[in-house]
Amino acid sequence: MRTLGIDPGTALMGFGLVEGPEPLRLIEYGCLTTASGLALPRRLLLLYQGLDDLIRRHRPDQVAVEQLYFSRNTRTAMAVGQARGVALLAAAAHGLEVAEYSPQQVKQAVAGFGGATKEQVQEMIRLLLRLPSVPQPDDAADALAIAICHTQFARAAALGIV
Amino acid sequence: MRTLGIDPGTALMGFGLVEGPEPLRLIEYGCLTTASGLALPRRLLLLYQGLDDLIRRHRPDQVAVEQLYFSRNTRTAMAVGQARGVALLAAAAHGLEVAEYSPQQVKQAVAGFGGATKEQVQEMIRLLLRLPSVPQPDDAADALAIAICHTQFARAAALGIV
Repeated sequence: MRTLGIDPGTALMGFGLVEGPEPLRLIEYGCLTTASGLALPRRLLLLYQGLDDLIRRHRPDQVAVEQLYFSRNTRTAMAVGQARGVALLAAAAHGLEVAEYSPQQVKQAVAGFGGATKEQVQEMIRLLLRLPSVPQPDDAADALAIAICHTQFARAAALGIV
Repeated sequence: MRTLGIDPGTALMGFGLVEGPEPLRLIEYGCLTTASGLALPRRLLLLYQGLDDLIRRHRPDQVAVEQLYFSRNTRTAMAVGQARGVALLAAAAHGLEVAEYSPQQVKQAVAGFGGATKEQVQEMIRLLLRLPSVPQPDDAADALAIAICHTQFARAAALGIV
């Protein structure tokens, strides 16, 4: 099963593609970036086209994102929401279901406990995917963590554990 | 000039198409609705397809939306943001620019003063567009108000007033 994890943002849209669960294998990760000087609709279009291209090239079976994220203020929440809407739309346009996980579920699945630090999660991603160093930037690492989380949950569901 | 005003929401996406400024003329208004039982990505796809269809049928010259709206909480802001992202994307996919106006600018342009009530704005929409009754629901009326606002601002800009 191939999973595309997405960490939505307008300036940086993190993505991580993994295959698994056995063996768990990295396909690609990175960030789609848009310049702050561009008009917002244009930036959203570039992000949509980038995700559409990733989905066409790698044909994931499912998409995973974090559940509604509670930001410090409503302005940030709306900005994240705009990018998140574009990510969900790209998935739906390809007929892909989107699984959602809480930050605690992601930490639990990747690092073994829901209170893991960002550094512990990133080090576990490095170990699980056999990378020479922790994935950068944080947005890409977060997207990989969500994709790995979904892979683990899907395995547990297939085994009838959850 | 033909303007598509949009009031973004996931359950109800209000839209209003007007032509003007002289004469100011209603083309179409209404709401795109999605059932709450559908998965969010699917709802966003239906909204995108609805806006895409409206743009193809009516070929507006510009799109207008309210500026970042400050909702009571971050959950609402993110939900509105997701629908707003889809609306901005639909505009950008057709190469349309998106103008943004504050609620005060909309009230000022439609009703003549920034402190107008919702009822006063709706009655002015009815008078300006020569409708038999005020447009319903509120989301459609709000979208018409934004479209009328943009038409007025565009005229003022053409005359060198703003």
